[in-house]
Amino acid sequence: MVNIFSSLPYKLEQEFFEELLLHKNIKIERIISKGHTSPKTAWYDQKENEWVIVLEGAGSILFENGAEFNLKKGDYLNIPARTRHKVTRTDPDNITIWLAIHYW
Amino acid sequence: MVNIFSSLPYKLEQEFFEELLLHKNIKIERIISKGHTSPKTAWYDQKENEWVIVLEGAGSILFENGAEFNLKKGDYLNIPARTRHKVTRTDPDNITIWLAIHYW
Repeated sequence: MVNIFSSLPYKLEQEFFEELLLHKNIKIERIISKGHTSPKTAWYDQKENEWVIVLEGAGSILFENGAEFNLKKGDYLNIPARTRHKVTRTDPDNITIWLAIHYW
Repeated sequence: MVNIFSSLPYKLEQEFFEELLLHKNIKIERIISKGHTSPKTAWYDQKENEWVIVLEGAGSILFENGAEFNLKKGDYLNIPARTRHKVTRTDPDNITIWLAIHYW
């Protein structure tokens, strides 16, 4: 049995992506950030849907239509496929743990 | 935006199941228990796979082969379809919040 709050990476020079489950219809991923954001000029434009929840820390997601959501622990959001978005902020002082369910 | 730790039911005479997302390939569900368990004589025997994580509290899952897992906050488990299992214990004093991803 595995714990989502354990086995944290020692260094976080880059965001840390870890696949927890892969199936033909979904992928479950743990993402660990610490001050990381999307590149200022780039948008995520995914062909899969994504349901994401913050399990620790805090992060902000901006959508192309201008809506920005500041997620704290426990907040979740559904991001339909092809909905352009980016991460504009994650807590620089503490780790942020995201659980992302990609489905298609 | 919704928070998984909010909108908790006031009464918990029965386990509380809440669908957070339904899609043709997955269902995301919040389950809230407080001392609830499966009926002693019954097994869950689901045609869907289920990935489950405890976000608050503690619960135990027993498999038909005798393996029992005591999950605490952050522990997760994958339960393949048709793997008979039951919940043998949840914390009687505090709520347990499960996040379950059913996929098929």
